[in-house]
This record gives sequence, C-alpha cells and structure tokens, in this order.
Amino acid sequence: MITQEAFPVEPWQVRETRLDLKLLAQSESLFALSNGHIGLRGNFDEGEPHGLPGTYLNSFFEVRPLPYAEAGFGYPEAGQTVVDVTNGKLLRLMVNDELFDVRYGHLLDHERILDLRAGTLVRRVHWRSPAGREVKLISTRLVSLAHRSVAAIEYVVEAVDEFVRVTVQSELVSNEGQPATSNDPRVSAVLDKPLEPVDHETTENRVVLMHRTRASGLMMSAGMDHDIDVPGRVEVQTEAHADLARTTVICGLRPGQKLRIVKYLAYGWSSLRSRPALRDQAAGALAGAKYSGWQGLVDAQREYLDNFWDSADVEVEGDPVIQQAVRFGLFHLLQSSARAERRGIASKGLTGTGYDGHIFWDTEGFVLPVLTYTAPHAVADALRWRASTLHVAKERAAELGLEGAAFPWRTIHGQECSGYWPAGTAAFHINADIAIAFERYRIVTGDQSLEEECGLEVLIETARLWRSLGHHDRHGVWHLDGVTGPDEYTAIVRDNVFTNLMAAHNLQVAAEACARHPEKARELGVSTEETAAWRDAAHAANIPYDEELGVHQQCEGFTTFAEWDFENRHSYPLLLHEPYVRLYPAQVIKQADLVLAMQWQSHAFTPEQKARNVDYYERRMVRDSSLSACTQAVMCAEVGHLELAHDYAFEAALIDLRDLHLNTRDGLHMASLAGAWTALVGGFGGLRDDEGILSLDPQLPDSFARLCFRLIWQGHRLTVSVTHDEVTYTLRDGPDGELKFRHAGEDLILTTSEPSTVALTRREPLLPRPPQPPGREPMHRHSGLASPKGAVSQRS
Amino acid sequence: MITQEAFPVEPWQVRETRLDLKLLAQSESLFALSNGHIGLRGNFDEGEPHGLPGTYLNSFFEVRPLPYAEAGFGYPEAGQTVVDVTNGKLLRLMVNDELFDVRYGHLLDHERILDLRAGTLVRRVHWRSPAGREVKLISTRLVSLAHRSVAAIEYVVEAVDEFVRVTVQSELVSNEGQPATSNDPRVSAVLDKPLEPVDHETTENRVVLMHRTRASGLMMSAGMDHDIDVPGRVEVQTEAHADLARTTVICGLRPGQKLRIVKYLAYGWSSLRSRPALRDQAAGALAGAKYSGWQGLVDAQREYLDNFWDSADVEVEGDPVIQQAVRFGLFHLLQSSARAERRGIASKGLTGTGYDGHIFWDTEGFVLPVLTYTAPHAVADALRWRASTLHVAKERAAELGLEGAAFPWRTIHGQECSGYWPAGTAAFHINADIAIAFERYRIVTGDQSLEEECGLEVLIETARLWRSLGHHDRHGVWHLDGVTGPDEYTAIVRDNVFTNLMAAHNLQVAAEACARHPEKARELGVSTEETAAWRDAAHAANIPYDEELGVHQQCEGFTTFAEWDFENRHSYPLLLHEPYVRLYPAQVIKQADLVLAMQWQSHAFTPEQKARNVDYYERRMVRDSSLSACTQAVMCAEVGHLELAHDYAFEAALIDLRDLHLNTRDGLHMASLAGAWTALVGGFGGLRDDEGILSLDPQLPDSFARLCFRLIWQGHRLTVSVTHDEVTYTLRDGPDGELKFRHAGEDLILTTSEPSTVALTRREPLLPRPPQPPGREPMHRHSGLASPKGAVSQRS
Repeated sequence: MITQEAFPVEPWQVRETRLDLKLLAQSESLFALSNGHIGLRGNFDEGEPHGLPGTYLNSFFEVRPLPYAEAGFGYPEAGQTVVDVTNGKLLRLMVNDELFDVRYGHLLDHERILDLRAGTLVRRVHWRSPAGREVKLISTRLVSLAHRSVAAIEYVVEAVDEFVRVTVQSELVSNEGQPATSNDPRVSAVLDKPLEPVDHETTENRVVLMHRTRASGLMMSAGMDHDIDVPGRVEVQTEAHADLARTTVICGLRPGQKLRIVKYLAYGWSSLRSRPALRDQAAGALAGAKYSGWQGLVDAQREYLDNFWDSADVEVEGDPVIQQAVRFGLFHLLQSSARAERRGIASKGLTGTGYDGHIFWDTEGFVLPVLTYTAPHAVADALRWRASTLHVAKERAAELGLEGAAFPWRTIHGQECSGYWPAGTAAFHINADIAIAFERYRIVTGDQSLEEECGLEVLIETARLWRSLGHHDRHGVWHLDGVTGPDEYTAIVRDNVFTNLMAAHNLQVAAEACARHPEKARELGVSTEETAAWRDAAHAANIPYDEELGVHQQCEGFTTFAEWDFENRHSYPLLLHEPYVRLYPAQVIKQADLVLAMQWQSHAFTPEQKARNVDYYERRMVRDSSLSACTQAVMCAEVGHLELAHDYAFEAALIDLRDLHLNTRDGLHMASLAGAWTALVGGFGGLRDDEGILSLDPQLPDSFARLCFRLIWQGHRLTVSVTHDEVTYTLRDGPDGELKFRHAGEDLILTTSEPSTVALTRREPLLPRPPQPPGREPMHRHSGLASPKGAVSQRS
Repeated sequence: MITQEAFPVEPWQVRETRLDLKLLAQSESLFALSNGHIGLRGNFDEGEPHGLPGTYLNSFFEVRPLPYAEAGFGYPEAGQTVVDVTNGKLLRLMVNDELFDVRYGHLLDHERILDLRAGTLVRRVHWRSPAGREVKLISTRLVSLAHRSVAAIEYVVEAVDEFVRVTVQSELVSNEGQPATSNDPRVSAVLDKPLEPVDHETTENRVVLMHRTRASGLMMSAGMDHDIDVPGRVEVQTEAHADLARTTVICGLRPGQKLRIVKYLAYGWSSLRSRPALRDQAAGALAGAKYSGWQGLVDAQREYLDNFWDSADVEVEGDPVIQQAVRFGLFHLLQSSARAERRGIASKGLTGTGYDGHIFWDTEGFVLPVLTYTAPHAVADALRWRASTLHVAKERAAELGLEGAAFPWRTIHGQECSGYWPAGTAAFHINADIAIAFERYRIVTGDQSLEEECGLEVLIETARLWRSLGHHDRHGVWHLDGVTGPDEYTAIVRDNVFTNLMAAHNLQVAAEACARHPEKARELGVSTEETAAWRDAAHAANIPYDEELGVHQQCEGFTTFAEWDFENRHSYPLLLHEPYVRLYPAQVIKQADLVLAMQWQSHAFTPEQKARNVDYYERRMVRDSSLSACTQAVMCAEVGHLELAHDYAFEAALIDLRDLHLNTRDGLHMASLAGAWTALVGGFGGLRDDEGILSLDPQLPDSFARLCFRLIWQGHRLTVSVTHDEVTYTLRDGPDGELKFRHAGEDLILTTSEPSTVALTRREPLLPRPPQPPGREPMHRHSGLASPKGAVSQRS
C-alpha cells in the first residue's frame, strides 16, 4: 500500500516529495515512460538503487519452456516472456572521487514529477556527498510520442558550494542483473542474460549496440548520442563493448556552474530485418532526434498531449484524488498504446514484467473501449495487431479440433502461452471480446474501412469458433459447455451468461458484417446457410435464470452452489490460500462476471433484473482481480447505488497510485486504470454502446459537484458536463453538424450550433445498498471514513 | 500388440517359445516375479539386451519436484517415483573368451516358462558362440512367497560339444542405466543414479551392498550368497565396491558336464532402522535362505501356491485363452500383494515403473475386491497400509479446507503426487472406494477386528470429508459439486452418480460402524448429531436421471452435452490426440463410470434402468482406460448381452498377454488383470456384495461349456460350477456347516454335507446388443472373427 502522503493530490502531475526506498519499485512503475514502442521504468539515472530495472520494447520477447507435472494434449510447450533490453537510461555521476548514490551522503532534497501534460519525468536532487560536496541535479526524461524510436534525457548537474570535478558516465548496458523472482504466479519468470551480442559500432559520441535473443531469434539495436554543454574545458570519451557502451564526460564546475548533457536514445528491433538495416535504423533515429534537439522533442511531446487531452480529459469536481487518478490512468493508457503500431498492448503496458509482459483480454475488454472514445487511431492499430495473429489463432483452433480461430488467453506474439487451461484456453470469451472490439470501433468511430481490411475475417472466424464450440440440445436450446467466464473462481461450466451473451453478440455481428460485405464474405467461404446457423445459435443461446430468486445464474446452477464460508475463509486473494477444487463449486466470485455481462450486454437485462442481480452478486464478489472494481462501479451506478459506485471508482482509479493489490512493483494495471475512466464515464455518465447507439444517462454521487468528460463519436467531439441537477451536451466538429444519441433512454439530437442542457432527476435504487463479503467492502469515499489508514485496516 | 503365437495357450503356464527382441520389454513385464515386497522384472540373467531393467522394493521411492507452468494453491510440489534398486539378477556368462549374448552367435533354442503353480520363471537356452562352442543354460528364478526378503536363482551351464572354460560373474549392480523415457504421461520419470552408496561388506562369497536415496532418505540393503556345484576344479572370487559386487566362478566343463550355481538374494529397506540393523537383516535372510537350500525354497513356493489355487482357481471350459489369462492374472495379483505387509499395492505391482510406481484407486477398487475372496490376509495388510497413511490424508484435507481425510489420488508414501488436480484431487471418490473396501472386507471375511483396529477411523474421517465437501441446496437436495468421477474425460462436474452413490454408501456405512463401536466412535469425537447428518446427506444425495430418455445421467446434464464426433475424431487413446477442453463437455467417456456405479452400487438401479443405461453408455465409452472392459463385461452380462460380456472379459484378461494398450512394457495392469476374475465371477457368476449379502446369479456365454470358480465367504470355501443348464454350489469348511446366500435374487441355504444344484434359465436381454463408438468394438470372442489380426485392424 502507498499512503496519500507519498504523492500529494495535484490535478496534472504525480509528484514524489521525498524518497522512500520501500516504495522504490512501485514508484518505478508509476513513473514509467512509454510511447507504446519503448518503455522505460522510472529507475534512477544512476541505475542504483533499483526495485526492478526495466527497459522494454513492445513485443520483444524470449521463449522459455513451460513445464507440466502432468502434461496434456494441446498444452503450450513454450512460453513467451518480455525481455529487459539494453538499458539506455544510465547516467552515472561522480563528484570528485565519490559516486553519486542516494543511499550514501545526504539527500538534502528529492523530488520527482510525472507531468501528465508535458509527458516528462523530472527529477530534482540536492545532494551532499559523504565528503561534504554539494551538487544539484535536474534530469528530465521523455519517451517521445512524436518520434517512435526515440527517448531522451536532459541531465543537468550544478556545483553548489565549492569547485568540484564532475564525471558523468552515460551508458548502454545489456543483460543487467535482475532481482530474484517470487513464487507468486502473477510475477514473471526471470531470464538470465537473455541477449546475445551481435555487433557494436562507435562513431564519435554515438554508439549502437546490437543483440539477439537466443530462442525467439529477435534482433534489437540500441543507440545513444549526446549534446554536451558546459562552461570551460570538458573531456569526452566514448567506448563500446559487447554488452556495454560508455560515453564519459569529465569537467570541473565552480559553484553555480552547470554541466548539461542531452542524451538521445534510439531503439529498434525486428525478426526480419538485417543487421545493417537495424543498425542504420537506430543511427538514423539518433540523427533525427539530434536534429530536433531537446527543445524540439519537448515541444512535440506537449503538442501531442495537448491534442490528446482536448478530446480525452475528464474533470471531476469534488474528488481531487479521483481527478488526479483518472488523468494518471489516461496518461498511462495513452503511453501504452500511442505508438504501439501493430503491436499489442500488454496488461502492464511497458511498465514492468508482471504476467511476463503478456497481452490478455484486458486489451480489447477494458483498454480499447476507453481508447476508442479518446485515441481511436491507437485502437485501429491494436486491432490490426490482433488481426495479424489470426493465422496463429486458426492453427490453435485446428489443434483444439475446432473451426475458425481461437485467440490465445495470454500471449506476446500470438501463440497461446497459458499454462493452465481451465483459466486459459477454456476462457473462450476472449474471442468475443476481440470481435466486439472491432464492432465497437466501427460504430463509435464510423470508420468502416478497418472491418473491410481485417475485421470481417476476425468476425467470421470467431463466429465459426462459437458455432463449433456450442451445440443445440434436443429441445433446440444452444449451449456452451465446459467454458470459463471472467470469474476464474468458477471454471469449466455450462452456459456462463457472460460468455453466452458475448458469443451470441459475436455471432449476430458477424452475420451482419457478412451482409455488409457479401463479396468478401463469399471469398472467405461464408454461405447464407452459415450465417443463418450463426443467427440461429445466437437466438437460441441459453441464459440461465433462477426463477425462484429472480436473478440470473452466473452459469447453469450457480445459485444452487454451496455458499462460501466467508466467516472462516477470508485470506485474500483467495487464490493464494484456497485450492481451486473448492473455489470452483462455491458461490464465491473473483471478479465481475454476470455483473460485467450487464454492462457490456446491457440491453439483455431489465432494470429490475439488474437491480436484483447487483444485489445478489455484490455479496459474493471478492475482487481478487483488478478487473472488477470498475465494472462494479458502473453497475452500482446504474442501479442507483451511487455512493457505492463512487467507492468502486476510487478503488479502480487508485489501484496503482495506492498500490492496492500490492503488486504495482511488477507494473501498472492498465485495465484498471482504464477502468477509472469507465467508472466515471460508463458509471456516472451512463455511457453504453452495445446497441450500436451512443447512449448516456448521467447521475452523480453526492460528493461530486461536477463531472465533465469528452469523447469522440463518429468524428464529433462531444463534451458532457454533469451536475446533480442537469447535464449539458456540447458538440464540436463532426462530419455533419448533428448527432443523434440517447439520453436516459430517450432519443436526442445535438447540433454544433449550441449546447443542449437537460434536467436530471435523482435516481433512486430499487433495493438497499448491498453488503460485500467480509473484508471486501470497498473503501468509503463519500463519508468521513475516507482516510487511507481506515482503508488499510479493511484490506488486511 | 502381442499375437497369440508368441505365447501358446496352455492352462498353467505362460511360455515363450522363441526370442523376439521387439517384445523383450513386454516379456520382462509378463515374466516379472514378485512377492509384494521384492519385484524382479523378467530381464535376462546376463542383463543384456533389456527393454527396461528393473528390480523394485515395495514403497522404496525417491522424491522429485513437480513443476507447473502456472502453479496453484494446494498443488503438490514433490512427486514420488519408484526406484530401480540394486540388481541382483545378474549372472554373466563367458564361454572361453566369448561373452554369452543372445544377439551374437546362434541361438539354437530358447524357451522361457512362467509356471503359475510352481511360482518360478524357467529359462532354457541352447547357444552356439560366434566361435562355434555350444552350451546349454537352464536358469530357474523365484521370488519367495514363503520368505519375504528372499529371491533365488538356480543357474546351470552345460557344455555340449567340446570342452569349454566357463566363467560366470554373479553380480549386484546399483544405479544401472535406464533407457530414455517418452513423452507419454503414463510413463514414469527417469531418475539418474538415485542410489548413494552407504556401505558394502564381503564375507567369503557373501556380499551386502547398502545404499540410500538422497531426497527421501530411505536406506536399502541387497545381499547375495552362493552354492556352487561343479565336477572338477573351480575358482571362486568375490569382490565388492560402492555400486558393484561380483562373485566370479571359473571352471572347465567337458561335454555333458554342468556348472550349477544357486544364487541367494536378500533385500531389505527402511526409513528408520540403522545401517547395522539393515545390513544384518540382509545377512540373516541370506543365511536363512541358504539353510533352506534351493529345493527348500522351491518346495515352499509350491506349497504356498497350492494353497492359494485351492481357494482361488477359476476354470473356464470352452475358452482356453481366457482360461490361461485369468490364472495369469490371479498369479500376478497374488505376487503383487502376498507379502506386501503394510505396504501398498501399486497399479503396476512391482513389474515396472509405469505411473511412477504409484498406488491409485485401482487397489481398493479393482484389486482388493478379488483378493478379498481369494487371499483375504493380503487385503487386511493392504488396508492396514492405507489406514497408516490416514494422518497424511487428514493433513491434506485440512490443506484443502475440508474436514476429515482426503486420501491421495496417486502416491507411494501417502502424500498426494497428482500434478493435475481435475483428474487427481477432484476425484474424491477414491475416499469412498477405500472406505467401502474396509466394509467389503468385514462382510466377506467376517473379520470384525480390522474395523476396530483401524477401519472405523477411516470410515469416520472419509464420512467427514464427504459431509464437508457436499451441501444441501435450498430444497434439501444434497449435492457434490466440482468433483470428477472415474471417467477422466468428464471432469469437475455436479453430482456424478458414481461419486454420489459411493459417498452416500460411505456415509451410511460409517454411521453403522459408529453404532457398532459407540465407545470408540465417541473417542474419535463422533456425536449422534454427526452420524445423523451423515445419514441425512446420504438419503438426500442427488442422483441425476433423464426422464425423457429413461437413463441416468453420468453427472448433472450429461445426456444434454454435445455428442462426440466419433466419425471424424477417433484417434485412440483420445487423451493423446484431443484437448481436455473439448473432451470434458462432450458425451465421450474414457471408462466405465455410470456403468461402474451399476456394478458397485447394484441395488440402486432397477433391471430396466440397468438395461437402458448399458444401452446408452455402451455407445459412448471408448475404453481409453484399462479399468473399463472388466466393468463393461460385468454389466453386459447382467443385462443379458452375454456374448458382448465375453468379448469384454477377453479384453480385460488379455490386456497384457496381448499388450492391448501398447504399454505392457512399463508394467502389468494389475486392475485389469483383477478384472479378468471380476468379469468371470462378477459377470458370468453374477457375484455382488453391495447389500452385505453374498449374491450370485450365474449365466454363461455360448462358447463356455462350464465355468467353475472358488471363493471364500466368512471362512467357508465355496465352489461354484456353472453350465448352461445348471449351477452346482459346493460348500467346504466354515465356522458352521451352513451358508445363507442369494441365488438369482432368491435366498438359498447351503450346507457342507452336500452340494446344491439349481437349474438355470437363459437370460434374455431387454434391448438388442448395443454398438460401440467406431473403432472401439471389443474383439469378438464368440464368432469366427476372433483372430488377433482382425483385432489389430479394429484398434488401429
């Protein structure tokens, strides 16, 4: 846990005011910079101390064997693991003959600022060496959103009290040591020296190191170049070895004098391109960066972000903590995706090695829905990446004896890397999550071209998967047996409502897409009989419902399973303390599942069903997954439990800023950070799109004075400003000056000529606020109980 | 596959008439000798060539780590693997300067005979060396049933044509090399040099070698001594090293002269006893063996077996192949258990390393039911072993968050060693299988003392397990959710009928046992409320039944699962070609499950239900397990498909003599061999005991002229001789001269004074003979289609 004191609440930045080495690993994740291609953890310039040193390139991975005590057919034999690549962040400092290290001497001042509008990480240090010499250090780091291959660091050292000789070693280091891993399955496997040296090249102060992974055979290049600026004599020397390149800068500084080094970094990797091509790519990127210069990079960074915030910002009046957190989340979401460009978006982005750097359903299910409304170009690229792995997914389906495509539960390069099939391959819903992400993109952006380019084939092959996986029983009811829904504490079940609704939607949407592209569909072998079979299955899908209790069953029979003994068995997360053999058949739920179905397939439930289902499932969900609080926020808001929704929104948004799951050290939870936006916009804004229409229905919790969010719908920029009494819709841009949408279930038409204001009436819940399992109440945001200390005791 | 030509059909022996190196590994399993303590594979005296060299001591194992790609709470971290211990079978022969090796020179004659009445393996060889010298060799090997620690070999070499110098090296070799293992999960893990030398001791021609395992810390001793008999001068020398002891015998033989060596072997092991104690145990056993002498050992062996066959033999007139096979099976069953003495009976006995030498439910479910009627002392010891692991099972239950005891799915020493919980821990039925084995022993033998000694506690703790695992739903119905029945192609289900009936029986029997031992039950903390709760649960257990189809559901919903696409997916065994994610939710069954329930819990089904259930499930069972054919034989016989039953009986009986599952090389299938007896006695004899009464109902298939079997019931020896027209019951011995039992549903009383003969009428099936899945029809025994070649094509 991180308490609020560590990072003061400020609207546009995350600032660390003092150094706490116990939070070092967490701060490295929080202060990570990325553009979706390069990821730099917020390690210190001097490399040490560190929690987890990390430099990542999107989709640059190594292969490792997956062992099984008892193997089975179709188990993946090889896993993929993100690699900590050549570290270019290093700038080691010597003051006279003493190495600058925050653990020695005296740290007079320490501050780090992640600036969400500038897109930089600034560090200010005032240090007195063990021998008593004082220096001030300001480093500013950025990973360029404008220049995909480029990162840069401005490093300024100032002598304070006396003349000092300053030595800076600017380095590239490959195969840096890693701390030992834990037994927690959510932590990545550690690779020992994953990079094999291929080549190194030095030209004056520019160096390029090249390496290759052994098993996956990927080649990477990392280069650095420098601008050096100092009054008086300076000596600069550059050397390069297999795993190390070093530019050494030596000079003398009188008090008040400064040494300024701008370090330009360039990274590239490829599985195809030749060594010279890859080397020249790095050299060229360095040349380009140097040509832009530091200020050029800084300016371009701010321009990119200004444009983003203009259509993505969320303003929260009345809860400054959530205000900061939702911007922090959006910033990292953008960082994870902006320049990924046909690479995937991992569940931790490029901020750490958690979950081996794998991509899960988090991407299409939680991250892309937010980006679709705020940075749609990134969504198109992420979906193109997914589509580029379709051939692997088709092979996987064939291996499983199924038709169509079976996308992997976890992967970097497209191959299934899940070593536990009941919570991997059996979670077939990922295929519908992907399919529907294409459909959402089409509807929300109005861009029909992506469907033609690659989406149609994904829709068709996922529909084929569902058709071959499901079957009609002798009464014509269509079942999906032996599948696992989002809730990983209930697996291999019949007719998981979430999966069945999503599969039905997938089938329906695929049939409609084929009707839109009859020729292409025919080329892909689709007949009208086939699409009819898809529609039949979709209409006949079984949706288990407990008539006696008046609630849906998460899966067939769920409401008749044994209740979990929460009184006696509540060591969370349960997966580390209880066996699956007992979790699976009990009414204990890891994460929103039926409740998620009610958000993503909202139209399939009546308001009364939603209210009763929320009431039933709230009592049984333990939120041992970070993919739950946001969904609970949305559905609690919809059924009128606005304060409870506020609590969940807080939990989703603060997951990493407060380290609520105690694993922020391994990287940020991108889906939960996306969930902060979703909780606000989907929850208090009431945004739904599952019927192909923009639908809004705002309602605020007590302590919010105003909520204002922006979104892009088919080229329109829409600003929604909500208070307790009214909502004002403001339309900008757009292909025509008019937007038809749904407000609180009623059709409304907006025009760019003037804002529309609608009065709101308070939403009353049908049922009282439900309790949660013991020890799993969310932190209370709306009352005086909001102190983080109170929260700690609830979570212990 | 082994064809019939390899081993001619003979009633009391298995004879190999020529050497086929392709069948070497299989023959080593078939010709294995054991007494339940020591196991010697049928490797050649000279050690090479071999398929799989093997010498085993019951429960002598090493620990190895169990790896997981994704671990979970409660997964066992350590596995246990049977160790190939010091090989004492070795007698290497040199003829002049040429090593005797069947792969070189010319094998003029070769014969090996496993004599089922003598309990010996005899080998006769006539060999011409590459240089043209001829010798005859006769070796006779036994593992003593009378002397637990002792094995012996009589080794006779005769010069044939010319004078030869003969050198015999009689050895003990530790850590012998093992062939590389395959990827088949059913094959054991190979350990490299598992034995650490502890000590060795030489006294004249006697040697004892001592070793210890590294991780499990078990110490073993192996000793040898010799009687040597030869006309003329002989030189004998004995030496010992850490991993090798050697007695070298050199002499000259003129044509017709013989060198006779009797090699006495002694083995012991312990986790507790000291090095001197263990050394002296081997030395003492050697002294005892030498004192008995070869002939004494041979005589005692035959006496032991005469006594066994007197009460265990089954005579089959009309099917000599099954006649031989059922005796072969009974012989190996006895070998696996006779002197196990509070050690377990592994699924392969001590004949190979298959399944890591683990003990499964095979023991209580398939092996002990046969031994209970034929060698009850061995059953009492096997159950005592199981009870001795109760404390481990209680710890396991606690780890799983359950009450009572959870016995391991697979183990050597009592700890759970299953690396795949859906077909391991979730197969909770093993607990009822064990409990009911105690109850069967009590009923069949009439021995009440074992229950008091240890059975009561097992019954109580297993009942407690069931009570905590199951729950009553809101209508009072008792469910067992998330369990796996015998069918490993359908796992983690609700209300598996087999499991629910067995659990209910377990609960009921435990309550009755507590009533018989009220004081001891009270000491174990059992209250009348607790036993009432057991009875309540037993009565309320859900038994899913499909009213429309008129058949039981193997588990809730089973008959509405998708049908398996047998037309297109029939590469058997399916587990090596199809993923669990598709097998689990389909109506494809690995092995008798609901059908097994109808045998073991016969009273819970009406004759009509049995007929319809057999008809339904026969079409969906692929028999990818060796634990299926025997059960199908029994139930097909009961519902009147006598010819189909005959086919299944053949398959169960011939599993190893014909290598039907293509893995006899790894050891014999003890449960299936037991199943040969069960198919005949339970199937054509109609033996049932699930209601606590001896119940018989004989009916023969067409080609049987007569079936005669013996069994022991509460001290009585009963012989049942069945023809098509009548059955004659002959009673011998017994506590009183009278036995009340049930014949064809009617109570009958037998006396020792005279046999009773009852007329039989032909049993007509209610439904026509059902088909099996394509490619899984059993071989036809009753028609002209019986040739093994026809069988091969059916199994491909």
